[in-house]
Amino acid sequence: MDKVNVAEKFALFDEKWAPKIVGELNGQYVKLVKVQGEFVWHSHQAEDELFLVLRGRLRMRFREREILIDPGEFVIVPRGTEHCPVADEEVHVLLLEPKTTLNTGSAGGERTRQAEWI
Amino acid sequence: MDKVNVAEKFALFDEKWAPKIVGELNGQYVKLVKVQGEFVWHSHQAEDELFLVLRGRLRMRFREREILIDPGEFVIVPRGTEHCPVADEEVHVLLLEPKTTLNTGSAGGERTRQAEWI
Repeated sequence: MDKVNVAEKFALFDEKWAPKIVGELNGQYVKLVKVQGEFVWHSHQAEDELFLVLRGRLRMRFREREILIDPGEFVIVPRGTEHCPVADEEVHVLLLEPKTTLNTGSAGGERTRQAEWI
Repeated sequence: MDKVNVAEKFALFDEKWAPKIVGELNGQYVKLVKVQGEFVWHSHQAEDELFLVLRGRLRMRFREREILIDPGEFVIVPRGTEHCPVADEEVHVLLLEPKTTLNTGSAGGERTRQAEWI
């Protein structure tokens, strides 16, 4: 058990859309991800997902609307809800989701990444 | 489903050691708490607990050592681990823990608070 410095962890990688695991509790992972550009539309059948923005502005698109999430703000996407994260600039996000969650959820495809510990 | 601005939520209350609920996902609550002074020694039998510090320095005491947690850092206290949070100044913390978790855990007593939504 040691503390985790979030900025130090972000400095360890540059790849976008590839979440890294930095903590584990109660069957969930705490992950960090850098994103830029547009992801894929997807949902997670049985997993709620928290996005806490730490740098930049995240545009979380839903089918009916879009939410702009700035540093110090978070959104929880409920299970089963289609969403597509978009970032006009580089955005740093802290994620919280079950250990089973894949980044592309129901969509799968070439942008799927297995998260690894850093 | 709406975004949550953490600073705006912190501005809504002043009471110390009384966690407020600001989000729910996968059977867990996201809580905010302001702390100052020394809490009580306690543990949580079946619940891991994440402390992400957003302002000030949190001193997390364990029986064998103490970890200093500054803004942008977090620690995960595993279930069953005795701990006692201490803050020399006012410290703002984001907590993540199961919905069943009470602030005083196994210790109970007069400092127990039922968290409420804000």
